[in-house]
Amino acid sequence: MSSDPDCVFCRIAAGEAPATVVHSDDTVVAFLDIDPVTPGHTLVVPRAHRPSLADLDERTGARMFEVARRLAAALRASGLRCEGVNLFLADGEAASQEVFHAHLHVFPRYGGDGFELRGRWGSNPTPEELEEAGARIRSALAATDADA
Amino acid sequence: MSSDPDCVFCRIAAGEAPATVVHSDDTVVAFLDIDPVTPGHTLVVPRAHRPSLADLDERTGARMFEVARRLAAALRASGLRCEGVNLFLADGEAASQEVFHAHLHVFPRYGGDGFELRGRWGSNPTPEELEEAGARIRSALAATDADA
Repeated sequence: MSSDPDCVFCRIAAGEAPATVVHSDDTVVAFLDIDPVTPGHTLVVPRAHRPSLADLDERTGARMFEVARRLAAALRASGLRCEGVNLFLADGEAASQEVFHAHLHVFPRYGGDGFELRGRWGSNPTPEELEEAGARIRSALAATDADA
Repeated sequence: MSSDPDCVFCRIAAGEAPATVVHSDDTVVAFLDIDPVTPGHTLVVPRAHRPSLADLDERTGARMFEVARRLAAALRASGLRCEGVNLFLADGEAASQEVFHAHLHVFPRYGGDGFELRGRWGSNPTPEELEEAGARIRSALAATDADA
């Protein structure tokens, strides 16, 4: 299985760097973020070194999501403060990816936790603008599928 | 397939409410958010009415993630501004879920797009605090798996 000795998540997956591991299987490992946004903030990562979403195969991505889904239920039942859950993944530097080994965040959420998304909502695109963007995406999806 | 006539995402999935659909299959539908954080912001939803993560079966969740992964590649190739991608899912009101039909956001990102996550990072948990949280999560995961 591909591994990068300079990648901290590869080292955690291999048991060579310390981490609070909460789940481990043949495909993914889940461990606590050492700089959590709320207590219980967990990362789900592929065992193999996969820098980006584009490097993930379908089976591995599916497993990451399923483990995150189970973690969401476990966090709600854990006794930690958890009234809701966010899943978050950053792909690429422009999207705030910091460790270039794909990772799906699972954030426990509760009222007053101080977490928020900020963005420029309210641009009110017209139906024509949405359709133009949609046409570009459909065309790119068709080209991507043809390559697969 | 379960459907809620009062749910806008069910109505979109059924073709009964307008939307810019970019992908549709037996399991999921993807369409543009009408209040996008950036142009091309897409939602991937199950066809069936599944309010929360806990209501999703493994196969449907896997398909949502795979379609989001393909959309991320398509957005980067679409000609829309997209230098990176975030995936985001809100489960529960405390996590800012607004439409109670599970949906995975795909946000195109680029420098200066105004999007950011805010939260109280920097709590610097001790290894013992992380391990105590981890033990609670492992225990809850084991109980959840036993129920499954």
